[in-house]
Amino acid sequence: MKKLFTLLVVLNTFLSLQAQEKDEKFIRTLFDEALERGESYSMLHYLTKNIGGRLSGSPQAAAAVEWTRQQMMSYGFDTVFLQPVMVPHWVRGAQEKGRIVGSQKRGSFDVPVTALGNSVGTGPEGVAAEVIEVQDFQKLAELGKDQITGKIVFFNRPMDPKLMDTFSAYGGAASQRGSGPSEAAKYGAIGVIVRSLSSFKDDVLHTGSTNYALNIPKIPAVAISAKNADMLSAMLKEEPNLRFYFETHCKMLEDVLSYNVVGEIHGKVHPDEIIAVGGHLDSWDLSEGAHDDGAGCVQSIEVLRLFKALNYQPQRTIRAVMFMNEENGLRGGRKYAELAGENKEKHVAALESDRGGFLPVGFGISGTKAQQDKMLSWQPLFAPYGLYQFKRGGGGADISPLRTQDVPTIGYLPDGQRYFKIHHTAIDNFEAVNQRELEMGAAAMAAMIYLIDQYGL
Amino acid sequence: MKKLFTLLVVLNTFLSLQAQEKDEKFIRTLFDEALERGESYSMLHYLTKNIGGRLSGSPQAAAAVEWTRQQMMSYGFDTVFLQPVMVPHWVRGAQEKGRIVGSQKRGSFDVPVTALGNSVGTGPEGVAAEVIEVQDFQKLAELGKDQITGKIVFFNRPMDPKLMDTFSAYGGAASQRGSGPSEAAKYGAIGVIVRSLSSFKDDVLHTGSTNYALNIPKIPAVAISAKNADMLSAMLKEEPNLRFYFETHCKMLEDVLSYNVVGEIHGKVHPDEIIAVGGHLDSWDLSEGAHDDGAGCVQSIEVLRLFKALNYQPQRTIRAVMFMNEENGLRGGRKYAELAGENKEKHVAALESDRGGFLPVGFGISGTKAQQDKMLSWQPLFAPYGLYQFKRGGGGADISPLRTQDVPTIGYLPDGQRYFKIHHTAIDNFEAVNQRELEMGAAAMAAMIYLIDQYGL
Repeated sequence: MKKLFTLLVVLNTFLSLQAQEKDEKFIRTLFDEALERGESYSMLHYLTKNIGGRLSGSPQAAAAVEWTRQQMMSYGFDTVFLQPVMVPHWVRGAQEKGRIVGSQKRGSFDVPVTALGNSVGTGPEGVAAEVIEVQDFQKLAELGKDQITGKIVFFNRPMDPKLMDTFSAYGGAASQRGSGPSEAAKYGAIGVIVRSLSSFKDDVLHTGSTNYALNIPKIPAVAISAKNADMLSAMLKEEPNLRFYFETHCKMLEDVLSYNVVGEIHGKVHPDEIIAVGGHLDSWDLSEGAHDDGAGCVQSIEVLRLFKALNYQPQRTIRAVMFMNEENGLRGGRKYAELAGENKEKHVAALESDRGGFLPVGFGISGTKAQQDKMLSWQPLFAPYGLYQFKRGGGGADISPLRTQDVPTIGYLPDGQRYFKIHHTAIDNFEAVNQRELEMGAAAMAAMIYLIDQYGL
Repeated sequence: MKKLFTLLVVLNTFLSLQAQEKDEKFIRTLFDEALERGESYSMLHYLTKNIGGRLSGSPQAAAAVEWTRQQMMSYGFDTVFLQPVMVPHWVRGAQEKGRIVGSQKRGSFDVPVTALGNSVGTGPEGVAAEVIEVQDFQKLAELGKDQITGKIVFFNRPMDPKLMDTFSAYGGAASQRGSGPSEAAKYGAIGVIVRSLSSFKDDVLHTGSTNYALNIPKIPAVAISAKNADMLSAMLKEEPNLRFYFETHCKMLEDVLSYNVVGEIHGKVHPDEIIAVGGHLDSWDLSEGAHDDGAGCVQSIEVLRLFKALNYQPQRTIRAVMFMNEENGLRGGRKYAELAGENKEKHVAALESDRGGFLPVGFGISGTKAQQDKMLSWQPLFAPYGLYQFKRGGGGADISPLRTQDVPTIGYLPDGQRYFKIHHTAIDNFEAVNQRELEMGAAAMAAMIYLIDQYGL
């Protein structure tokens, strides 16, 4: 009996070493294929240069849907289909204008602004008022209606440069943009200026969505660059009665029919078990949306292409999902989860890439403790490629609605130090993406999907 | 007795936990200072924009020496001094020209070229000949003088994209540039074209030094872009008798007096024990030399500035060394080691940053097994900042001569995926450097120097 037990232990060790060697080899071939013959970079070139910025409801978003569908078909995925979803249709309109008015020291001069996404516009008459600077909503309450009514509130809380996790720094500053306009309007403000959410003190304008609360007046809101925020702040200290003028022509139109695009390779053993990998197809309008999130889209398609190129026949169904409308509504992500529920789909896991096409450093993992432990145990297989940061907690906006169905969600983690230079700006273009970083990310994502496919969760 | 032993063990554990906490805290303050009030980026701006490319012997190299001296003085380092060293003085001269001549299919057309550093020029008459493509020196031997005499040899071995360590990929291809011209000349070649040493198939020209062997005719040599190398190779398959013309006006002049620049903070406990941290002040002439190696220079100065800003009084003497002439002679590095030997200086360690100002990922460490083990044991202190790759073996070209004096050498390792896009090209400019990555690197280097200062090797 004892001998049999020993034999079984030895056999088990032998088999798991064999499995490990097989996994190491296959992951190596994924990276080789991605780096030698990868197509993520050329796909991204098409998406950014031939289609460009793809705000929900725009003609470019429609073009992106059709291009993605055709691209997936051309790779011979087993099924390619669209999921109809109504999306908001916000348009920026004519060029925005901003101006500091009547400084005793410096006179009047232009300051570039960009409207926050979903914001109402000022129309041609613009908004002009004194500016009151605050760091947070607490300060609004302290100042109260008396001091805020009729003014432009200037939210100037910077991202904390000391935080290594730039997404935490972003999270610490983002409420100003997301809720600032409604919070200021509660106290009678007539407009809002937000310091661009940037890790850098530069001249770049960062847009991004704001969300108006119900039953609060919708007031127009713009971002100014971090450098100009510092300047405005310094000027206000000397001249508290300084005025700011801005003019925006944005507006929210009727909802538009759009689509999530889904491509599948069917599982040979468990075709009804789905592993989803995706990014969001929509982007802001200021740039080509290369890192955010063209990168995540082409990487997700590349995951399936890599499997086909290497003749890997998955046990479970692998799905590439291009979500629509992450930026200013999340309608695509919600629709996907809704349909998954209606159709009683069994999702084994969902992985999202929406932190740019930068150097892969790891994954952030949500799920049960056992599911997390299992994925964390795979980290050594990724060490040869520089991925050391396997963290508990994570996912992505588009796949977050699946959490209510207890689907484990995984966020692909590229390095984040450069992201908030280009995030939601006019410089998030193809040229900002490095080919090797993009390709390594696709291979790392494919490796994670492969392991989930092999071992389940 | 047993109780005393237990007490000592407990006390020792307590003290080492205290030390660890102290180290963690100090390293945190280094990163905070570098990221909140760091000056490496503004120093780099001056060095790249106000001085620019700094090839050995150039007026800009002289300006860089004087600027560095003044910069170190302005920070109040205890001692700042110059180490005179004679350096080669190679000049590129007038614009180079390259041309594919007389293709039956495509006629004649220009192909951009850049002369290899140290190369002789063709003069205004240029060089024109048939082209013979090879991947390595073995192939030259097989072809022999009969097939090579009078021709231009085209070295077309790409960097291997599958290698994660791009420096290994570079090492695998660099002999073509370093020794190719002399190897080809042995068989009667009259000129050499080298495929640019790049990780990418793009249009960028990469220069870099070639080293002529003694008693072999010096033949002119140029690089073409990776994309054009692929094109030329494809054309040669169809038209093996294709001719190439190139014209270069570079030449080697008389040696010039230049300097290493050294700044010190004196040690309070062991002032005669030196820890050196440096980069090389010279650069190629095509660009501003931002990553290579302006970044390493300003990071090294920043290490000392950080210590001063935080009122850290080192136990040992910390030296920032700006080496001259790494690119095409290594005279500064050799001179530094020579003087260290003559002056019987005791170097505890030397650390070099010469792999660009990219995201820090670790250190490469040379020295005795015990010295390596000690430094490897510090890795957990760096994990909060994303540095996981502490490797045996490493250093840097400029500090390598110190190895003969048994000085442990340490190479700062930033991520290398983007380096061979800009290395030795016209696009290695300030704009290619990310502020946070540069600053985090300086802080990581300072943390390593701090630990060596605290605990010795």
